[in-house]
Amino acid sequence: MTGGAPPVRVGIIGASGLAGGDLIRLVVQHPRLRLTFLGGSSSVGRRPSELHPGLRQDLGVSVEAVPDDPDVLAERCDVVFLSTPAPASAELAARLADRVPCVIDLSGAFRIRTPALHDRWYPKVSRSPELAERFVYGVPELIGERLAGAPLISLPGCYATAITLGLAPLVLGLGLELRTVVVDGKSGSSGGGLQLRTPDLHPFRSGAIAPYAPTGHRHAAEVGDFLERAEPGRIASLSMSAYGVSHVRGLLTSSYVFTDGDTPDARTLHRAYLRFYKGHRFVRVRRHTETLIPVPDPQAVLGSNYCDIAVEHDPDGDRIVVLAALDNLVKGAAGQAVQALNIRFGLPEEEGLTMQPVMPA
Amino acid sequence: MTGGAPPVRVGIIGASGLAGGDLIRLVVQHPRLRLTFLGGSSSVGRRPSELHPGLRQDLGVSVEAVPDDPDVLAERCDVVFLSTPAPASAELAARLADRVPCVIDLSGAFRIRTPALHDRWYPKVSRSPELAERFVYGVPELIGERLAGAPLISLPGCYATAITLGLAPLVLGLGLELRTVVVDGKSGSSGGGLQLRTPDLHPFRSGAIAPYAPTGHRHAAEVGDFLERAEPGRIASLSMSAYGVSHVRGLLTSSYVFTDGDTPDARTLHRAYLRFYKGHRFVRVRRHTETLIPVPDPQAVLGSNYCDIAVEHDPDGDRIVVLAALDNLVKGAAGQAVQALNIRFGLPEEEGLTMQPVMPA
Amino acid sequence: MTGGAPPVRVGIIGASGLAGGDLIRLVVQHPRLRLTFLGGSSSVGRRPSELHPGLRQDLGVSVEAVPDDPDVLAERCDVVFLSTPAPASAELAARLADRVPCVIDLSGAFRIRTPALHDRWYPKVSRSPELAERFVYGVPELIGERLAGAPLISLPGCYATAITLGLAPLVLGLGLELRTVVVDGKSGSSGGGLQLRTPDLHPFRSGAIAPYAPTGHRHAAEVGDFLERAEPGRIASLSMSAYGVSHVRGLLTSSYVFTDGDTPDARTLHRAYLRFYKGHRFVRVRRHTETLIPVPDPQAVLGSNYCDIAVEHDPDGDRIVVLAALDNLVKGAAGQAVQALNIRFGLPEEEGLTMQPVMPA
Amino acid sequence: MTGGAPPVRVGIIGASGLAGGDLIRLVVQHPRLRLTFLGGSSSVGRRPSELHPGLRQDLGVSVEAVPDDPDVLAERCDVVFLSTPAPASAELAARLADRVPCVIDLSGAFRIRTPALHDRWYPKVSRSPELAERFVYGVPELIGERLAGAPLISLPGCYATAITLGLAPLVLGLGLELRTVVVDGKSGSSGGGLQLRTPDLHPFRSGAIAPYAPTGHRHAAEVGDFLERAEPGRIASLSMSAYGVSHVRGLLTSSYVFTDGDTPDARTLHRAYLRFYKGHRFVRVRRHTETLIPVPDPQAVLGSNYCDIAVEHDPDGDRIVVLAALDNLVKGAAGQAVQALNIRFGLPEEEGLTMQPVMPA
Repeated sequence: MTGGAPPVRVGIIGASGLAGGDLIRLVVQHPRLRLTFLGGSSSVGRRPSELHPGLRQDLGVSVEAVPDDPDVLAERCDVVFLSTPAPASAELAARLADRVPCVIDLSGAFRIRTPALHDRWYPKVSRSPELAERFVYGVPELIGERLAGAPLISLPGCYATAITLGLAPLVLGLGLELRTVVVDGKSGSSGGGLQLRTPDLHPFRSGAIAPYAPTGHRHAAEVGDFLERAEPGRIASLSMSAYGVSHVRGLLTSSYVFTDGDTPDARTLHRAYLRFYKGHRFVRVRRHTETLIPVPDPQAVLGSNYCDIAVEHDPDGDRIVVLAALDNLVKGAAGQAVQALNIRFGLPEEEGLTMQPVMPA
Repeated sequence: MTGGAPPVRVGIIGASGLAGGDLIRLVVQHPRLRLTFLGGSSSVGRRPSELHPGLRQDLGVSVEAVPDDPDVLAERCDVVFLSTPAPASAELAARLADRVPCVIDLSGAFRIRTPALHDRWYPKVSRSPELAERFVYGVPELIGERLAGAPLISLPGCYATAITLGLAPLVLGLGLELRTVVVDGKSGSSGGGLQLRTPDLHPFRSGAIAPYAPTGHRHAAEVGDFLERAEPGRIASLSMSAYGVSHVRGLLTSSYVFTDGDTPDARTLHRAYLRFYKGHRFVRVRRHTETLIPVPDPQAVLGSNYCDIAVEHDPDGDRIVVLAALDNLVKGAAGQAVQALNIRFGLPEEEGLTMQPVMPA
Repeated sequence: MTGGAPPVRVGIIGASGLAGGDLIRLVVQHPRLRLTFLGGSSSVGRRPSELHPGLRQDLGVSVEAVPDDPDVLAERCDVVFLSTPAPASAELAARLADRVPCVIDLSGAFRIRTPALHDRWYPKVSRSPELAERFVYGVPELIGERLAGAPLISLPGCYATAITLGLAPLVLGLGLELRTVVVDGKSGSSGGGLQLRTPDLHPFRSGAIAPYAPTGHRHAAEVGDFLERAEPGRIASLSMSAYGVSHVRGLLTSSYVFTDGDTPDARTLHRAYLRFYKGHRFVRVRRHTETLIPVPDPQAVLGSNYCDIAVEHDPDGDRIVVLAALDNLVKGAAGQAVQALNIRFGLPEEEGLTMQPVMPA
Repeated sequence: MTGGAPPVRVGIIGASGLAGGDLIRLVVQHPRLRLTFLGGSSSVGRRPSELHPGLRQDLGVSVEAVPDDPDVLAERCDVVFLSTPAPASAELAARLADRVPCVIDLSGAFRIRTPALHDRWYPKVSRSPELAERFVYGVPELIGERLAGAPLISLPGCYATAITLGLAPLVLGLGLELRTVVVDGKSGSSGGGLQLRTPDLHPFRSGAIAPYAPTGHRHAAEVGDFLERAEPGRIASLSMSAYGVSHVRGLLTSSYVFTDGDTPDARTLHRAYLRFYKGHRFVRVRRHTETLIPVPDPQAVLGSNYCDIAVEHDPDGDRIVVLAALDNLVKGAAGQAVQALNIRFGLPEEEGLTMQPVMPA
């Protein structure tokens, strides 16, 4: 801990999941944060290193049951991360709102604003529309100033983060009209969490290209909802298919975009992306061939908070190809959460998040 | 060897590559074939098991230099497989045509019929248009009878096989007009062969989602050329992006199809596919959810000559999603070559190809 | 089906496990076998292809409950494979013995003959010593003639097969006295079956070198018991550690052997191994450097019934290093079971088992 | 950069290798270091992010040719890391010694002190015995104080680090006499660097258990040489076999130890290890079963500077089993190098090295 300001006291609810593990990792590494509460249900009494074997054994906290009285949490935490399933997040957020200074939810409970769309994709997650409206939602690069001081923050899904960062320069920067967007999402197995399901056992997931969501994914709905509110009427059709591939950490989204009107050429597109993300260090606009392996590739962001993006123009079909890669547990979850916390609490946006990717791994 | 007919004598040129290895494997396992010649350049004198460590050590043949005089080959072989790079295949085919009873080329040299299209995608492969016209090209399921007795056969690329089998029921069966087809291809590392290149080293290819061909792939051109000749004017736009993922053997193609006019519903589509491939045992039309893991998945065809296909309708975007999985070295190369040989020589189409997938692996 | 003899009718109990899946695969591919019964508990009514997504959809059998009356099975089957957990095998074998012509057990229930040793390593598997004595146990290469006509057969564990084949030429061939044998076993994830356990989920098993049995493994006890009975007093100390590594199918055992008396040199050892396994086609004695990758390596036997073995002498420590690789689901389970069946029923030992390894995969 | 002291200026020669890449990563992340020189041969003019696609694009340095005049380097660097092959390191060290304040060599050139042993294992690396004697060699945990102010530092190999840390408590702590030590080393593919060799291509290395050094490894010689000098006569026999397994980053060494005299029990051993490494935060003594997956496992140290160690007693064979896991590019190379630099320059030993493992990955 350097400097004079007291550290931000952080609570994490949902200690045993993979995103919870990366939250602990990033909080422990952060020079201005202190982990003061770890909440869970099935793992009460366990040390973090028992649940997440990579972590140091001596972190000084153990998993506790979440207290019924939110003020008990408020005494110990300046901010509480909810790394819980969406139904649990909806319930916890209702209890903690206005009692804890800041609640940051990593689940899907408050991502989709439009009620009918929420109900279609999250039929089991009931939440009050009023509470949902109070949440600030979005990728920090696109909504940064709105996070400052926010009491309730909802963070995008891992795929949604990549797709939104990939499409934003077209819609919000260049102001294009997109006739058809087809998204093909490819994710490692950590995106599915640690549920005990046969298809997630190593023998079946290793070597797989598993078409687990061939005709639609709720993260696409989330992207559409956000961009429609940000710039109405720009995307006529957005569809998505999602695949599980044979690695653990990281995802790539490919957005195949057909525009109404003239499609910019590759150079114009690349420059527009560079301009759009100027000053945003976590987004790296790259040329597909700028390095000794093709990029973006999730292995080149592993363990880091980067989202790598490349944009190309394909003369066959006159389409734009946008590729975006990120670590689903960092920029797609825990890292983005810490980034939002930094902005929320007036810390430098990159504090505690400057680790370079661990590559190759 | 059962029954009375003499075995078909088989030569393979290109002994050291991965497709060459699987050709040897399948010929050795085939009850009606005998491997009589193995040709190569860099590996002359080596036994097959030195080059392909899985093979039995006692196959009784070693790699030889290809004789200058084609009649020497003709004396020893009823059929010669060319498992060589496209430029070498073009040159060898010109020499062997009309001298050897049957030449089966696994390279791209004679796949694209339209000269301008060939020249765009294979600028370094010169061939005479007359010779190219003499080659019978296509997926055996679609051109079966034309293979009988053919002296010159050109086999589709691995991706092309999957895409064509996936689109044929729409174009040739249902007779739909396809406005836009976007193909996303995902392949294991064996699709790239054994070239010594840094991106193909294990540290960089393991864990990768490598966008190695984001804006076009020649196999898409091949598919377009074939379907245009089979049923002109049905596909207005066909584009493709290709990715290397973190396993070794097998590929999946996802074809996202937008039609002109009404799009059939999922059940109609599934039935049309069942009908189209009735009697073709190597194509397995599957329901996406019919088994305990999502299919088609290349791991469920590993080592076999199957192509697994599922077709779905996505109401978001009103699109058809066609998924096709195959083992790129079997149904995408060596297995399909043996299948073509079987038809060519009047053997049962499935002879020597009835092995079930090795799964999980 | 060739020739005139009627096929051997095969029942398999334990349809849903990985070894069960490979048994189905091998029986279906075998020209002289017919699958007539498939028994299970949790999966009654399911088609094999629903449980094992690689299998053909039209096998004509579905999973049935095991009938209480063994004679019902006897009417339909000439042989029943037990691919069940050891406690279930013990119970089923007691019921089926003397009622079904041949029972072949793939579990550990009847592997260890010495009662005290059995009770130490299989404390939950009760069996009558009389029944256990009636089982013929062993690797077919070592006990071949004893399998002919046997009514009850118990097959070695996957590790035990590799270790025993690796040590037999030293103990039974060269007649050495082994002072200390240290075995290091490395296995893919399919060795652990399909139990729903957190360490077997893909995120934790991928990339792992998991020391799951650092101080002992019951397969070592099985090897010791067998070799002690075959040639008493030759191994003074045998210990084993076992590790799970990051692939799916195949294992390698390294046996580090210190002898009493003079240790033969590498060439003498290699020749002795060649001599010992002369005529046994499923054991391939190899030079460590005979091919373009180091062998034995389980990837070079994938999907096949081979066990690859190399023997070396290390001057540092004056030790013998024996390496043995096999596919744990084939030579380590289902393939060896079919091999035993072939001998038992007077078929050629290699019938239905001549498939070459699928490599690379 | 916090605090008032000027940063240590760091040069790295050998920019393009994997250890070079991790050195850049760790130097960039370190609050007290500044990367001022990057030397290479084949990659002159390239930015680090072109060679190591994970790195930030804007590091402000590019690869330069190494100047002939060492004083040019001395003007720009307080310390130079040699991340070069051993022959190049030997030559560079001779030139830079006494000209640059500190040279830290990561190669094998100066690891083995005993000349005859060096010549056996490094026959192509000529070095003057006088220069070799001046190098301080060893794992920082074991030789910490000797590193302070040292002008020439040689760091252990990746395997040697794990083996030495694993055996030191037995030899240097408990003072046991070790009759026989058998080491089984298992490493990911990054241990072999980025050489363009067929066995290192993804199709052959993925899924492999490659016995690449079955009868000896020079890291074992290095361990023996070090421990013999530290405590003569304690190890009668030390042999090693090494295997490449199917992941990228991280290794595990298993040391199977047979003692002369009484072998301590498991609890005594565990306590002795805890005591021996008390205060050394990078060595984590663990119970094999203390977490939800078996440890030590290299995946639980990925990207970090930890070495995880467990010690067990196996009653079968009365042997001690010592397991040690580390990230071969961090604690086995670049991280250990930075750790040594920290001690050398009076910085806190853990500065810049407190990152937690990225797990699962």
